[in-house]
Amino acid sequence: MHSHDSIRAVQWRGDYLRLLDQRRLPQEESWLDCRDAAQVTQAIRDLAVRGAPAIGIAAAWGVAMAARQNAPMDAALAMLRAARPTAVNLMWALDRMKKRIAAGADAGALAAEAQAIQDEDLAANRKMGELGASLIAAHAGVLTHCNTGSLATAGYGTALGVIRAGVAAGRIERVYAGETRPWQQGARLTMWELVRDGIPAQLIADSAAAHLMKSGAVQWVIVGADRIAANGDVANKIGTYQLAIAAKYHGVRFMVVAPSSTIDMATGTGEEIEIELRDPGELLHAAGQRTVVEGAHAWNPVFDVTPAELITAIVTERGVIERPGSVAMQAMFGW
Amino acid sequence: MHSHDSIRAVQWRGDYLRLLDQRRLPQEESWLDCRDAAQVTQAIRDLAVRGAPAIGIAAAWGVAMAARQNAPMDAALAMLRAARPTAVNLMWALDRMKKRIAAGADAGALAAEAQAIQDEDLAANRKMGELGASLIAAHAGVLTHCNTGSLATAGYGTALGVIRAGVAAGRIERVYAGETRPWQQGARLTMWELVRDGIPAQLIADSAAAHLMKSGAVQWVIVGADRIAANGDVANKIGTYQLAIAAKYHGVRFMVVAPSSTIDMATGTGEEIEIELRDPGELLHAAGQRTVVEGAHAWNPVFDVTPAELITAIVTERGVIERPGSVAMQAMFGW
Repeated sequence: MHSHDSIRAVQWRGDYLRLLDQRRLPQEESWLDCRDAAQVTQAIRDLAVRGAPAIGIAAAWGVAMAARQNAPMDAALAMLRAARPTAVNLMWALDRMKKRIAAGADAGALAAEAQAIQDEDLAANRKMGELGASLIAAHAGVLTHCNTGSLATAGYGTALGVIRAGVAAGRIERVYAGETRPWQQGARLTMWELVRDGIPAQLIADSAAAHLMKSGAVQWVIVGADRIAANGDVANKIGTYQLAIAAKYHGVRFMVVAPSSTIDMATGTGEEIEIELRDPGELLHAAGQRTVVEGAHAWNPVFDVTPAELITAIVTERGVIERPGSVAMQAMFGW
Repeated sequence: MHSHDSIRAVQWRGDYLRLLDQRRLPQEESWLDCRDAAQVTQAIRDLAVRGAPAIGIAAAWGVAMAARQNAPMDAALAMLRAARPTAVNLMWALDRMKKRIAAGADAGALAAEAQAIQDEDLAANRKMGELGASLIAAHAGVLTHCNTGSLATAGYGTALGVIRAGVAAGRIERVYAGETRPWQQGARLTMWELVRDGIPAQLIADSAAAHLMKSGAVQWVIVGADRIAANGDVANKIGTYQLAIAAKYHGVRFMVVAPSSTIDMATGTGEEIEIELRDPGELLHAAGQRTVVEGAHAWNPVFDVTPAELITAIVTERGVIERPGSVAMQAMFGW
């Protein structure tokens, strides 16, 4: 185990929620304190906290704060739910809190529920790390996308948890991270986590992935997920789909790592998943400066859907589904 | 014809070469004057001038200046040749100048040869624009990569020339440009050209291309080339190969547009083409600021090779090769 896998980006401090502000990494480790559900909503919308599991955990704490403050619970739930549309963990965590509210839970019980969501996520990540790493043969190179590490979860990470476990087990010898335009989660956050852990890694342009695969340097692409439909289709950070197509073309295997809270059995296929469009300004500016000519337009979808047919394995804390499809998904996650 | 297609990024001013400094666009239109072959070499290496045809033209003018200054010609040729390794137009233009030197051409004749190279490139672009646009059916959407416009050539452009011609002919209705990390040629340069021409276009993250293709919005990917091998394999800006794989997966057609000076019949396949690796710092910094944690490494290949099997058509001023391969290439470009 590495000394630094204990970064906790989402921290309950007894009466407020402290978030490591991911907009400022890696330049500064700056903390943002949220004292009510509205501040948590804002932090989710503005990407101060991001990563599907971390968003769910933060939202649960937002509900717990609303209860302590005797705020109207329905309004708090609705506000948090609307913060971002694609990650289902957000809806899952809020539904779980809502069920406890409906069962008459008081503020203390709701705080305990938020803590349980957080603790279970960390345990799930450890379990997925083991399961995922066991799929990887010795001397492997891996490529990951976006940030799926401690910063995106309660700790350790999903895809990055598998990479941590695979490196610790001596199976993974080469780690590559895609920049992940436009928000640079790979460049800013994943590289920050990997350098802290002392895991040698190389950053690549997102568009260099196919050229890297052709070189033979990577055997697995390992990514997280924001929502997994009942047929095994996966919504994840924009670029995931393109990586999956390139992986298929090169015979590189493709692993999706996500807690079962990411599974959305109510959504039949990936076609039904709402893809968030964010501000085109994310493509037209850098570091606060306009970098593209005035008058230019941009299209900025921040997720895409990878069809199950391109996926080698979906790893959850409940087990691994190889060659995912409706039948296997139903068997593991059906009601 | 649009009023702005006359931008000339490489201008001979009678006794020096004036270059539109592409490192500063779109923020400033700043001109860089090169007064000898060494300054031209530096401008090529530093990307003040870039784009395979433009590099060849600039190098030819570098040779012409060396002759005027009675500089040692072999040294000037060698220095310019080593400025960048992948674009064959550079070698082609220098070989053409060298042949004239060997034939006893004086400084005036060498300047005339450089001017001929430049004039022929512009004429080739116009011809390729016609030929390429004729392949495109009505109501098309197209995606391009990097910058292949007036800035990358003597004027009008290769892939962007086809797009200009297709828009002018009313066949192309939607234009998308990939950012082209890390140097952002698409974001900074192609969008600048398109906005100047009044061609409506949308910028996308490079990694959003497959998601865009899945939406049905594009029927063609249209790109340039830095070198085309004898079997039709194409070296071009990093990310081209990944786009070609995604295009194949979606049944989107893939057009490569390049003057015959880009054809390298002496290179059998793309595997033999040297791929330039540039400073990893291009991925680790933005606007002069370090954006990735200290201690992080990066891998920065700036070209890749697209195999002929992924290409629908190669368009040159000599004609179109559909489903390129060795036989068709030999028939059109063989000695």
